[in-house]
Amino acid sequence: MKIALAQLDYHIGNFDGNLQKMLAAVEEARAQGADLICFGELAVCGYPPRDFLDFDDFIRRSQDSVQALKAASKGIGILVGAPTPNPRIEGKDLFNSAYFLYDDKILGIQHKTLLPTYDIFDEYRYFEPATEYQVVEFKGHKIALTVCEDIWNVGNENPLYTVCPLDEMRKLNPDFVLNISASPFSTSQAKERLHVVRANVERYGVPLFYCNHVGAQTDIIFDGGSVVMSPDGRVFDELPYFEEALRVYDLEAVKQGGVDQEQIKDKTALMHRALLVGIGDYFRKLGFKKAILGLSGGIDSAVVAALAAEALGADNVRVLFMPSQFSSDHSINDARRLAENLGMQYDIVPIQPMYAVFETALKNQFAGRDFDVTEENIQARVRGTLLMAMSNKFGNILLNTTNKSEMAVGYGTLYGDMCGGISVLGDVYKTEVYELARYINRNEEIIPLSSIEKPPSAELRPGQKDSDSLPPYDILDQVLFQYIEKVQGPKELVAMGFEEALVKRILRMVNINEFKREQAAPVLRVSTKAFGMGRRMPIVGKYLS
Amino acid sequence: MKIALAQLDYHIGNFDGNLQKMLAAVEEARAQGADLICFGELAVCGYPPRDFLDFDDFIRRSQDSVQALKAASKGIGILVGAPTPNPRIEGKDLFNSAYFLYDDKILGIQHKTLLPTYDIFDEYRYFEPATEYQVVEFKGHKIALTVCEDIWNVGNENPLYTVCPLDEMRKLNPDFVLNISASPFSTSQAKERLHVVRANVERYGVPLFYCNHVGAQTDIIFDGGSVVMSPDGRVFDELPYFEEALRVYDLEAVKQGGVDQEQIKDKTALMHRALLVGIGDYFRKLGFKKAILGLSGGIDSAVVAALAAEALGADNVRVLFMPSQFSSDHSINDARRLAENLGMQYDIVPIQPMYAVFETALKNQFAGRDFDVTEENIQARVRGTLLMAMSNKFGNILLNTTNKSEMAVGYGTLYGDMCGGISVLGDVYKTEVYELARYINRNEEIIPLSSIEKPPSAELRPGQKDSDSLPPYDILDQVLFQYIEKVQGPKELVAMGFEEALVKRILRMVNINEFKREQAAPVLRVSTKAFGMGRRMPIVGKYLS
Repeated sequence: MKIALAQLDYHIGNFDGNLQKMLAAVEEARAQGADLICFGELAVCGYPPRDFLDFDDFIRRSQDSVQALKAASKGIGILVGAPTPNPRIEGKDLFNSAYFLYDDKILGIQHKTLLPTYDIFDEYRYFEPATEYQVVEFKGHKIALTVCEDIWNVGNENPLYTVCPLDEMRKLNPDFVLNISASPFSTSQAKERLHVVRANVERYGVPLFYCNHVGAQTDIIFDGGSVVMSPDGRVFDELPYFEEALRVYDLEAVKQGGVDQEQIKDKTALMHRALLVGIGDYFRKLGFKKAILGLSGGIDSAVVAALAAEALGADNVRVLFMPSQFSSDHSINDARRLAENLGMQYDIVPIQPMYAVFETALKNQFAGRDFDVTEENIQARVRGTLLMAMSNKFGNILLNTTNKSEMAVGYGTLYGDMCGGISVLGDVYKTEVYELARYINRNEEIIPLSSIEKPPSAELRPGQKDSDSLPPYDILDQVLFQYIEKVQGPKELVAMGFEEALVKRILRMVNINEFKREQAAPVLRVSTKAFGMGRRMPIVGKYLS
Repeated sequence: MKIALAQLDYHIGNFDGNLQKMLAAVEEARAQGADLICFGELAVCGYPPRDFLDFDDFIRRSQDSVQALKAASKGIGILVGAPTPNPRIEGKDLFNSAYFLYDDKILGIQHKTLLPTYDIFDEYRYFEPATEYQVVEFKGHKIALTVCEDIWNVGNENPLYTVCPLDEMRKLNPDFVLNISASPFSTSQAKERLHVVRANVERYGVPLFYCNHVGAQTDIIFDGGSVVMSPDGRVFDELPYFEEALRVYDLEAVKQGGVDQEQIKDKTALMHRALLVGIGDYFRKLGFKKAILGLSGGIDSAVVAALAAEALGADNVRVLFMPSQFSSDHSINDARRLAENLGMQYDIVPIQPMYAVFETALKNQFAGRDFDVTEENIQARVRGTLLMAMSNKFGNILLNTTNKSEMAVGYGTLYGDMCGGISVLGDVYKTEVYELARYINRNEEIIPLSSIEKPPSAELRPGQKDSDSLPPYDILDQVLFQYIEKVQGPKELVAMGFEEALVKRILRMVNINEFKREQAAPVLRVSTKAFGMGRRMPIVGKYLS
């Protein structure tokens, strides 16, 4: 028995595109002698389809794709994910299903039992959990079908569900397990995924074939890394990270034992690849080619420019340097040098004339009042307006350059430097931005060293430094990580040794700036807890604020 | 047996504030001879607490409030909602519970069974459903405790759940049902609520006391309207809409039969009250007093200004009129007249100087290119920058004036007229804005009639009218309503008689503008489907687009 895993980049709602891609993979698998090919969870419509699932038309078109794949299944089994209408009036209207198609027939449909409803996931919003279990009999084998989360209650110290579908299916003595997933990337995900797959293989004693999505859907990035694990709990093969792939495995060989073939899991290297995929797919799937961003001479915009050049090609990235009277010479030089290193088209548009005319226009209203954050924000908003004008005139999408530390504490101007179609670094702490910069420079100096080495500054008033109003980033980022990713409260943070007043100040900054994040660009998710759909906070709350 | 319903406005995470308010209500109920007082769902922490629920500290503080209420329950029963840690390792970590407290003891805890996970609700994200049922015995009565959604599977043509908690509890022969709710407003909610309460009373044959929240939590508005229904299915009493209230009922009198006491449910009047509460609570709960907005002379900003004056006091609302070379004389006059009618401080800041200097700054880059949407957007963004500068300098929150029709089709400038802390009309279609305007003028001409009667125009280019680029609003709004609120797809819309090309064009406009709505201000929710948390759509999808 030869089993193909097809790890593909789907496009949400693009039924024709997804179907054509899958049909091509079926032909390739057939050519390689596969008996069976596996695609991903909800592959016909892409993941996450969100509230498109509420439309009957969307479900009909999903079912049309299942029919088309069924018609293509002559002589080859196809395992594919699709939403299924729930025939029962009670309960949610849909199931999240795995379809096993063969010889123009449906050999089996297994609905998903464990419906992730946490972080970025909302599956119980749409789907009724399965309560019936089966194995599919195919060419003399009994196969247990599972969908993504169905295997994640095993090997989990805090299991989220009170049932475990494979505990039910094992009663039917399956020979192996297939899992079709849409399991998103974070820098710790590849390791966690292998842990969970191994825990299942150890519990059930049979091989497991796990087939994931790859590619980005706005904020959510899929890293692939589909895995085949032998019954001895060793990795037989792991598909590449961040690339489409199709490989065929011989079941008998898999049963013989794994080889611990695993890829490198360096955090910064993975994050770098993920961000490239995130940028690239955002443009490609929206049908755009060209990006624009503002260069400040600082490290954040330098890293975004370098990533954009790699993801889109330097020819497709235009940068604007918009100095003010507060911009330092080294910023101007660093920005120019970066653009030249990357070979990008750059424009210099000083903002003093706009800034001056805003000050004049509001002279009467502002009479007798001091320079304050208002004037800093006007500068940032003038820059935002210039960038958006370039975006509108030339059809370039604006890349946002705010990092996660700034986004967390509200150190940024709404409608100013927070503008952009997609936030590239919004899930990357400032200390990690430095790691990315050094990684980007691993072979040559692309980002000027002075951008990396100088103290960070927004340059919105004379001599300003981030450290004037923020704690040092190495401390700040630790507290933020514990609060955001690890969900530790004030008591726990103090118990870890952080100073109480500092903890209180940082948590308050995070909480009172929810209104800014609410209007931020979608953030490429690379951690286990990114701002956006995965972290839902009240705005008018009064808690730790 | 005397039962008090306390319909209160809670504040998310403000444990001390919520507790003090409830303790005062306990004393008032006690003074009125009540045996029992009911508060709302998750009243100790406010609703919806969202991911604050993930913090142990938040749960500890919720439990501290339960303990404080327990200590205050000497001689009076208290029914209150709070999150409860789930002692079992499997499943979600919390329950959403109703606590029955009396004489410093917990007489009973009933967890919620039906966890709404649709629209704005995410309860299965946090809570494990109940599987055990009880009745509380109190002063010779058996009482069934339910939490909000627990009664909503009855009287529902498409029930979302496969279980029905009162079907279980009826086996224990309860004398009456208490329901603590946090059930948000929409213009059809008061009617729907009575329908559901009645369906339960008819099914179980006992009185039902339903106690709701009141007040707004950012986007979500609670209208109160708590209801007491007699076993004959008639309303015994309905608490006021949009106001805190505490009333005491004699159980024996309730059993005798209802009186059909119901309040008026005029859609526009309800919407008007809801928006006032939404504006007022947003400011009060954030600790702000003063608003600012831009007046264009058009109807949307006129309606927002009138609502803000009523919600916050005209003294607390400042308006900016920012004419351009494209502004008509009637706009200038209408804006001034409105500000004078309302008695508001207004400033006139022409935008030509800023617009001109942006054009000059980008002269080289834009050489040889025509006036297009870029220049329209620069005007809108100059206005946004001016308004935000006023907001920053004076601590006034900017009110957004975009209506639902514009927001739906993307007829608005991101970082321009889409700026603001809260969107007042983002859930009000243009045709409904006219209804609101006429309602506001019901006693006198507050909004100049010419603002109501003239053809809508953004005035961003010479002679521009909305109808140049959009279908007529009466058609557009019907298609939008069917697509957004009624979730009807293209086939269904054409079957209703809308022209196919028009349907395709409108649906495409809605879908390709998701990226704008993603960065929009939170929208005061008044319909059954508002933009924001209740409508979750992919951005890079390719569906009907």
